Order: sequence, then C-alpha cells, then structure tokens
Amino acid sequence: MYSFRNDYSELVHPEILELIKQTLTEQNLGYGLDRHSDLARKLIQKEIKNNNVDIHFLVGGTSCNKIVIAHSLKPYEAVISVDSGHINVHESGAIEASGHKILLVSGENGKITPEKIELVCSKHSGEHMVVPRMVYISNSTEIGTIYKKRELEAIFNKCQELGLYLFIDGARLGVALTADENDLTLADIAEMSDVFYIGGTKNGAMLGEALVIVNPGLKEGFRNILKQNGGMLAKGYLLGIQFEALFTDNLIFRLARHTNEIAMLLKAGLKNLNIKFAFDSPTNQQFIVLDNRIVQALTENYDFEIWEKNKDTTTIRLVTSWATPQDAINNFLQDLKTLLK
Amino acid sequence: MYSFRNDYSELVHPEILELIKQTLTEQNLGYGLDRHSDLARKLIQKEIKNNNVDIHFLVGGTSCNKIVIAHSLKPYEAVISVDSGHINVHESGAIEASGHKILLVSGENGKITPEKIELVCSKHSGEHMVVPRMVYISNSTEIGTIYKKRELEAIFNKCQELGLYLFIDGARLGVALTADENDLTLADIAEMSDVFYIGGTKNGAMLGEALVIVNPGLKEGFRNILKQNGGMLAKGYLLGIQFEALFTDNLIFRLARHTNEIAMLLKAGLKNLNIKFAFDSPTNQQFIVLDNRIVQALTENYDFEIWEKNKDTTTIRLVTSWATPQDAINNFLQDLKTLLK
Amino acid sequence: MYSFRNDYSELVHPEILELIKQTLTEQNLGYGLDRHSDLARKLIQKEIKNNNVDIHFLVGGTSCNKIVIAHSLKPYEAVISVDSGHINVHESGAIEASGHKILLVSGENGKITPEKIELVCSKHSGEHMVVPRMVYISNSTEIGTIYKKRELEAIFNKCQELGLYLFIDGARLGVALTADENDLTLADIAEMSDVFYIGGTKNGAMLGEALVIVNPGLKEGFRNILKQNGGMLAKGYLLGIQFEALFTDNLIFRLARHTNEIAMLLKAGLKNLNIKFAFDSPTNQQFIVLDNRIVQALTENYDFEIWEKNKDTTTIRLVTSWATPQDAINNFLQDLKTLLK
Amino acid sequence: MYSFRNDYSELVHPEILELIKQTLTEQNLGYGLDRHSDLARKLIQKEIKNNNVDIHFLVGGTSCNKIVIAHSLKPYEAVISVDSGHINVHESGAIEASGHKILLVSGENGKITPEKIELVCSKHSGEHMVVPRMVYISNSTEIGTIYKKRELEAIFNKCQELGLYLFIDGARLGVALTADENDLTLADIAEMSDVFYIGGTKNGAMLGEALVIVNPGLKEGFRNILKQNGGMLAKGYLLGIQFEALFTDNLIFRLARHTNEIAMLLKAGLKNLNIKFAFDSPTNQQFIVLDNRIVQALTENYDFEIWEKNKDTTTIRLVTSWATPQDAINNFLQDLKTLLK
Repeated sequence: MYSFRNDYSELVHPEILELIKQTLTEQNLGYGLDRHSDLARKLIQKEIKNNNVDIHFLVGGTSCNKIVIAHSLKPYEAVISVDSGHINVHESGAIEASGHKILLVSGENGKITPEKIELVCSKHSGEHMVVPRMVYISNSTEIGTIYKKRELEAIFNKCQELGLYLFIDGARLGVALTADENDLTLADIAEMSDVFYIGGTKNGAMLGEALVIVNPGLKEGFRNILKQNGGMLAKGYLLGIQFEALFTDNLIFRLARHTNEIAMLLKAGLKNLNIKFAFDSPTNQQFIVLDNRIVQALTENYDFEIWEKNKDTTTIRLVTSWATPQDAINNFLQDLKTLLK
Repeated sequence: MYSFRNDYSELVHPEILELIKQTLTEQNLGYGLDRHSDLARKLIQKEIKNNNVDIHFLVGGTSCNKIVIAHSLKPYEAVISVDSGHINVHESGAIEASGHKILLVSGENGKITPEKIELVCSKHSGEHMVVPRMVYISNSTEIGTIYKKRELEAIFNKCQELGLYLFIDGARLGVALTADENDLTLADIAEMSDVFYIGGTKNGAMLGEALVIVNPGLKEGFRNILKQNGGMLAKGYLLGIQFEALFTDNLIFRLARHTNEIAMLLKAGLKNLNIKFAFDSPTNQQFIVLDNRIVQALTENYDFEIWEKNKDTTTIRLVTSWATPQDAINNFLQDLKTLLK
Repeated sequence: MYSFRNDYSELVHPEILELIKQTLTEQNLGYGLDRHSDLARKLIQKEIKNNNVDIHFLVGGTSCNKIVIAHSLKPYEAVISVDSGHINVHESGAIEASGHKILLVSGENGKITPEKIELVCSKHSGEHMVVPRMVYISNSTEIGTIYKKRELEAIFNKCQELGLYLFIDGARLGVALTADENDLTLADIAEMSDVFYIGGTKNGAMLGEALVIVNPGLKEGFRNILKQNGGMLAKGYLLGIQFEALFTDNLIFRLARHTNEIAMLLKAGLKNLNIKFAFDSPTNQQFIVLDNRIVQALTENYDFEIWEKNKDTTTIRLVTSWATPQDAINNFLQDLKTLLK
Repeated sequence: MYSFRNDYSELVHPEILELIKQTLTEQNLGYGLDRHSDLARKLIQKEIKNNNVDIHFLVGGTSCNKIVIAHSLKPYEAVISVDSGHINVHESGAIEASGHKILLVSGENGKITPEKIELVCSKHSGEHMVVPRMVYISNSTEIGTIYKKRELEAIFNKCQELGLYLFIDGARLGVALTADENDLTLADIAEMSDVFYIGGTKNGAMLGEALVIVNPGLKEGFRNILKQNGGMLAKGYLLGIQFEALFTDNLIFRLARHTNEIAMLLKAGLKNLNIKFAFDSPTNQQFIVLDNRIVQALTENYDFEIWEKNKDTTTIRLVTSWATPQDAINNFLQDLKTLLK
C-alpha cells in the first residue's frame, strides 16, 4: 500500500533530524526565545532580504490562519477569501470561532482577483455590514495552482488601495516557489504581503510554520495572542531547530523542488494515459477524474483522497512529497495502465 | 417629505400607548418576571394553541437572531441561510461574532428549499468542516416574499430528517401571515419550527420581539444567555405590556393587515404605471426599478432605501407600515406619474 | 404591598411620557440617526461642556458594559474592577463572553484606589499574562457609595500614568451626582474618564443609557460593534426622545435629587430606630441588618432584595426611586417600629 | 551556566527519539488516526484499567486547558480554580478568550478543597450570575504540592454532588504520581475525574499531552473543537509515537521518578544549608527564599525563575527535569554554600 493522500505522511527529513540530534545535550530557553529560533529568524530574514520583519514559529496551518486573522482584525472586520479557501472549508469554522466573518468570492483556478476584491468592498458599507479588512490567499492554492508575479502584484496593489491587509497562507509555499512556471521569490512574497507564512509541516519538518509579519502595524501583541490561543510551544526551539535546518543549504527549496519534479513525472505519465485532469496544477497536488470502477480498484494498493464523487466518475487527489520515490510513481502509473485496459 | 424607508419610522400605535398609560402608577418586577409579560405569554400561547412553549421578550431582531443561534449551537456547529438572509448581510457579523459560521445557499425568491438544505449537509462531514445544525429562514423574507404552508412543511420535515433545528425570524411575521396569498397561521408556525419570533418593532410596538421556544431541548439556560448578551431589559414589563396590547383584540394582525392593504394599493398603482418590479412581493416591501433620473427627482419629497444602483437604473425599496395613510400612497403615485411623463 | 426592590419598578416619569406623546405623529430615521437623538446629544454636550465627544444611546447597563469593553480592548487585554463590581458578579459572565478577563481587587467601601490599580499592573507582565488596559468603576457603586472628586482625580491620573482607560458605569450616576456629600459635576466626570454613561433606566426613563465617548481613540467603529452586539435599536429615537426630556429643565437631576431625598428620609428614620447599617450609603440604596424574624414579617407588606442571609440576621437592600412617595417611607418605618417592639 | 528554569529545557529523552527514528521510513495517516496513536491509546487504557475512555493527543498544556473547558461548558457556565491556577495566571486569558469566567478561590498549599467549591456554588444562583459547572485542579500544583487520595476523593465526590465536572491538569502528573508521599495511581486519577491529561512536554517528550476523556458526556465533538482551535496536528503520529514510547517499559514513571529523586537531593541539600522554603513541595519544583545579594550572585552561573521579589529577599523557583544530572545539584549546593559564608 502506497499513500498519495497528502504531503505529511512521512515524519521528517534526515537533515532536519540530524540537526535535532546535535542539540540533544543542550539546554534551551522556552517559548521561542532560544538561539536556534533566533538563528532561523536571521536565515529567513536573509532569504527575504528584509531584517525589519517579525518572525514567529507556529505549530500548523490552521493555527496560523486563525491566530493571524484574530490578531489583525477588529471584532466587526472581515476577511475575503475564495470559496474553496482552506479557512472557509477545512478548518471547522476556526475563523468564525474567533468572531470573524469570511466574505466569499468564487475563485478563478482557485485564485482571487483584484476585480473580485473590489466588488466585495463596493458592496459593504455602513455599520450594518461587516467591514472588509483583509484578503486571504494561499500559494499554492487548494487545487495546486500558483500565483504569478503580476497577479500577486495586482492583488497587493488593490489591497493597498482599499486599505486591506494581504495575508498569504504558505502552507505549501515551497512547491509554489519551485514550480516550473513560478516567477516569484520568497523576497517577492515578503514585499507584496502584510503577513505570510512558510510551511514546514508539508515540506519535510515534523511540524511548524514560520510566520513572517511584514506590516509594522501587525507586530505588537502577537506573542500575547499566540499564547492565548494555545499556539506557543514550551519547547519552541523544536520549531526553531527545524527551520534552521530548512534554511541551511537551501534545504527547504531542495525538498520542494523534488516534490514538484516527482509530481511532474506523475502528471506527464497520467497525460500519456490520456487521463482527464480536474485542474491544471503545476505543483504537488494533482486532481484526476477516473471511472468509479478504476478508483475502487486503485484503493487496493494506493491511498488517496476522494475529492468529488459523482454517479460514474470520481475526482481523486494525488499528492507527492519530499519523500516520494520515483518507484512509487512508476508503479502507480503501471497499475493504472493495467486497470485502464 | 414622506418616508417609505422602513416600517419602524413611527413610534407606537395608540392602543399600545393606551395600555402603557394605564400601567404608569404600577410597580412591576423586573427582567420579564412581571404580570404583564406573563399575561402576554398566555395570550400568545392561546393564539398558537400550545401551552408548552417558553416565551421571552427581546429588544430587537438582531438581538434575537444572535442570541438564539448562540444558544442553540455548539462551537463547531453552523447555521444554514440564504445568502440574502438578514443574519448574513445586515447584522454586522453578529452571528460570526458569537463564533458560528453561516453556510450560504442561493435563495429562490428569497427562500430556502429542502433540496438546498440537503445539498449543504451532504457536503459537510468530518471534523475538518463545521457541522450544519440549524436552518434560519425569515417570513416574510428580505425581499418581501412569503412561505406557503407546503413549503414550510417540506423544509421542516427535511430539518427533522437531517437533525437540524428550524429557526424562523419573524421580524415581519405579521405581514407574512396576513398577506393575501398566505395560508399559514401562527399555530402552524409554532408547529413547524423549533424556535421563532413574532416581531413587534416593525408592527406597531416601540420595540420588542416575542421569542417562542417550541423545542424543549432549547429551553434550558435561555435567560442566562439572554442576560449574558445584554438582551434582558431591567424594565422587561415594557415589552410585556406591548405584547399584551398586540395580542388583545387581534391588534397585531389588524396592524399587519392594514400594512399589507396599503402596500397592495401601492403595488396596484405602480403596476398601473407599468413600473418594473425587481421581485414579486405580496407584503409591505415593494422593490421597483426606476431610471436614475426619476429616483433622483423622487428624493425631493420622499425618503426610501436604495436597494441596488446600476448605470442607468436604480432599484428602490418602498415600505409601508401600520401608520401609512392612503394619502401617502396616492400622492406618491401621482408624483411618480408626473415624473414619468 | 410596596416594593423597595429596585429603582426600575415604575415605568416612566410623566414629563418623559409627555414628550413621547408629542412625537407620535412624526416619522423618524432609525438607528439613532434621528433629530431627537441629535438634540439629546447637544443637550448632554452642553451639560458636560464638551462638544468633542461621541454620544450613543444604548438599551441598558449590561449592554453598555459589555459593548464598551469589547470595543476598547484587544483580545489579550483585561479590565480591572473591584470584586463587587456589576460586571464581575451580576452580568452572567458578559465580559468574559466577549473574551476579556476581569482582574479583581477588593474594594474599599465598594471603591477602587490608585494603589490597588498599581498593584495589579505591577503583577502583570509578559505574554503569559493578560495585559491590564482598562479600569472599570461605577458611581454610585454597587453598595451605594460615591466617589469624591479627589478620589476620581487620583484614579484618573493613575490610569493616565499607566496607560489604562477609565470607564465609569453611570447606571446610577444621577443619584451619585446629587448626593449631599457629592462634589463632582457631570462635566468633571467627562473630564476625568475616557468613556462613561449616564443611566436613564434607573432614573425615570423606560429604558436607555447615554454613553459618552470622550477619548478620541475609542470613537471609531463604535456603531459597528453596537450593531454587531444587537444593541442598536431600530427605533433609536425612543431613546433619544427620553434623553431629550431628561436633559430638559434639568429633569435628570430633579428626579435623582428626589430619589436621594426620600432615601435620606428613610436612612434618618432607620437611624432613629437604631437599625444597623451594613454600609454607609449617601444614595438611594440602603443596606440594613435585621433579625431574620423581622425580615420575614416585613415581607408580608414589602418587597426588597435579600443581600446576605446569615444564621440569625439578614442584610436587606432598600432602594428608593424617582417615584417613591414619602408615605411609603413613613409606612415602612412605622411598620418596622411596630415589629421591633 | 546551568538552568533550573523549568522542566522543558532539554528536547527529548533518547528512548523516545529512538522510537521516532524507527518510524522514519513509514507513511502514517494524519490527524491522530495512525497506528502509533492507537497503540499509545491502548497502552494508556491498560495503565488506567479502563478501555471506555477517549484519548486525544494535544500539543501543550494551555491548548489542553483552553480546548477542554471550551468544549465542556455552555456559554454562561464557569470553571472554578484556585487563584494561583495556571489557567488564571499564566495563559494570557485563554479561558476567558473562549468566553468563560474563572471563579476564583484561595488555595490551601496551592490546592482546592470541597468546602471552597461548595461556598462558590452557594453564592451563585439565578440568571444574572454565571453557573459554576467545572472544577479545575492541577496535580502537581503550581507550587509543586500534590493531592493525596483522600483529598481527591473528597473533591470528586463534592463535584458529583454539585453536578460539576472535575478536570485535572496533569502537565506535571508524572512527578505527582511518583512523589514519595503520593498514594494515587494513574487508574485512581481516571476514576476520580471527568477529564484529565498526562503531560509529555515536561516529562521527556518534545511536545504533547495525552488527554483522557472519562465522562461519556464529554466525548462527542471533541475532534471538531480540537480542529477548530488549531490544536490538531497534521502529523499527529509525532505525538502518538512519543506516548507509545513513554508508556513502554514504564518510561514515563522512570523519568518522573528520576526528576523527583534529583529534586529531593536538592531539597535535602538546601535544608542542610538552612535555606528557607516558600512552600513545602515534594516534587520537582522547589521554592526558596534568599537574600537579593545571593540571588544576584547565583545568576552568574545559574538560570532560574524569579517567583517573587521583595525589598531584601527574593523567592526563586528551582526546577529539575528527567535530564538533570546529580552533578548539577552538587555544584549548585556547593556554590550556594560558598555564597552564604
């Protein structure tokens, strides 16, 4: 049985574990105030070419999304998202539980546009309606697509014009920035957002996201709200060490690049088999449409997520990770080919 | 200047004020524990033919909606509403501020259907998504339409089948139940819902909504959550007295009936003038589409709400109330006719 | 049966009702945007000698307390109060329900002191603790005592020094400012606080508190949060009209003065009977200690609140209002005298 | 420099890391649905001799406390705690941020008593007050003391009598159950509580607490609220693996026993030096009072927490862990002895 269910099925990359082992005899300060977290911060600041950012290490994506939004908005302010957004669908109402409405727009290839942002804002005025104050996007998106530089630029400019924060969920930022068609750098991300995070959980770390607060107005009090939300680890250095490793020798991008390369092998193989794609994704999530019979047969040897089930066909999601070997792809394609006969 | 802006522009109906005056020398217990509130409860119970309901008097519609939903749902449970629903658009995020997500469906003539309820539920499962647990509807709806008996029955049955509470916002229940095409009684409403309220604010009272909790599982603790939300008046008997008056000699329905009759005069007159209607409403909210030039000219002598503004035309909302005199309608139609020439 | 249970047993003072009657044929804008609310605002601004304040009319004390605190504090900020404070004991957890901790100090005669404020602040630092950001006091206090000018001044200065907002709950501000030993004016209150309110409910109005926001930093967004909390009345002019009446011909202070005078008659009479007082209150709440037997006997003809019950004695609270006639006092004293024999 | 600051200064015990290494090539299901988490659950169930409990693995103590309380209480219900309780002082208002009031009682040796629980409950009634519904205790307490079996029994019986849940914060449960004077077993804890957790973070794990829900009424929906609060790790098997290791060959108690033994060495040595103790703690937190001069001098070579600073003396907290070597104690005692001369 091989799993293409997600990119967090394997615990940790050896280079990260190696650094962990080297710290075993140390004593470290708690709550992210340790030397490893500080070093990781410096490495990230260097990569984004900006020392004036605050960096916090959090345990996961939902935690980041919930806490950042709760921190940034007043009680009557709202966040704009595409309807497929992770905060809207897959976080069990975490944002609303913090008191904030999510204003929905339909996505184009999973992405938001300046026009849709403007439309939402134009429809909200007066104290009987919530006040739009933040735009949430993820890169890569829920369906694996990525933002091009001109797209992000246009969105950020629109946000600036309308007085909205731009918040980028980067749980899968690694694969976004190493995709073939990507033209953004991590420094660009920091330049064209108010706050964003760099995912570790889905890119080789045991757990952890590096949250970067660029907008000075969002810096104050973040540690308080992090603690209040149960998001501050006692052994915060566990996160610091891992990001130190990820930003050493470019590990984070090496892992993401492998993840994409193996995904592109899969994609090419599927195309060879004339498989129908639900979305055209340049990253590690591939969505394909198969006959229900085929899907049923595949489940004997493979694990994956059912995305949408219809009468005759099912869309499934196949996800590769830093740990996916080429053999897994070859075997899957071979087995699928056999089933298709 | 005459205002068709809403149905709460005039303070209070004389029969209600008369009862208020009769109580001036009384001393009454606070917090809704007084004799007038008790009497009003009995009158309402008689009207709905059910003595096993709890009745609380609240100050307004948003207060009712927010508190009932906060009271009924667990933190991860959500309420289903049409996207035009008052709780979604016009309450400044009050529901989300209590921690709950609103799951949206597009309305059909402003109304929800069993099919749409079922579809939402079928798409929600597992702990990563919120759990749909309540359906919110209003009667009349935001665009003045009303639910027929078979529609409500079908919705309530679907709710029962899926384990959902049905909550009816009755801020304008009076006009709904006295519309020409209505076939529901107040007793039907109580039979086919878990909790609902009867609006006073928009039907002759200074303020106040009578909330009726039918489902025994929703009764416990309501006074606690009412107090906690700042919704419990010290002089609760002010609300009790008014509902005593409204349910004496059928006042509540007399007022609503007048409101509708005057609205139907307006509607007929507008039709005579070949005015385009945005929605076909049988109650006191009429939505018409006029050239921007006409709208501009009307604002000199009339006040009303701009519903939607487009390049050439504007949809405006005209609302009648228990206090609207026939003359106001005649004058408006006459003036409009002149402008149309 | 005569009730000394509270100061909200009688609905409304005739002068207020008179003004209400005069408005019956008017049409008014909703949500506090009407001419009466505006006039009431001007009258209050004149009384406090400050036109640069925002004034909102709310339905009641708990609503004011909850909404002001929710509006003023960030999620991790807390409010300081004496442990007997209304927000701590009698609001069903309304403040915590908005997410904020109340930091408690023991009161001195029901009052807070600069020393206690400083002590609380000195014990709070770092992100593991809440951040004290507001001081809540009420005048008169829960036990009827009042703040002298030098006391308030010292508290406000300490708040300024420590970066704390001072919020004055004035549900019973009328009796505080008209007590014999009072040396504060309404203008002083406005000068030595960031936000406060003037109670109507307990001083002749049907309902309503006039909230005055002095600190410019607290003004923005208040209408949004008011709406979001279900605290904005559709017929807001009902509140405006009443405060217009209360601030016409000094009605608010005339009513409060009567309330106190009648309370002082009661107090003097009780002293004559050598009754033991639990607190020395110069306002309309008098707390006396009686044998359980006497209390039991009194309940046949009088209603009042049991404050604290012990083995042999009970502390009861006697409250006078703008409507309490001298006869009620005389009868009560006479009956008590008879029982004491 | 040696740190006695806390028991989470060292990352992970070698036996736990060893098991982690053995899983490196595995693929595991996410969100705590993996085989390691299941095995850890079985091992814990065996230890507490009860298979009818739900077990969830959370990231830390504040997360546990916040989520359990939010899960268990209705909006107007409150939790009782000693004023020194972690939830009251050191969680940045996390409990109130979820909407719940903490009702405080003064502790006796850091512990709550049935009498104090009863007193709080007797003072709360009616809808104007919060409803006490849960008692929160920690074992060991914030000052290192522990509950004896008869104490816990009396508390649990009182909770049962009054309809209160008993929730035991076991962030330091290991040292509590292995203290010399302890007479409780883990099975006793499960028998005399509704919900409790077993700390991993402070007892050798990288992170993680094992939450045990005993009361069937508290089981439903916990995964939903866990997800909603950002407390559900994608790689939940990281937690499962660690608890699997901790409950293999009794590791959890071996580590705790060492922690206590080394603490008792320290305590004995300090007594020999006639040092004054602030509290008499039988576990790994020792609180001693030293002249400010001595404290200052100690900071050159040792790190520890300042508990309370007075004019001449300072109370400091010294904490040992599973990793503290005997040498560290000997050196500290020797250095202190020298300073005391």
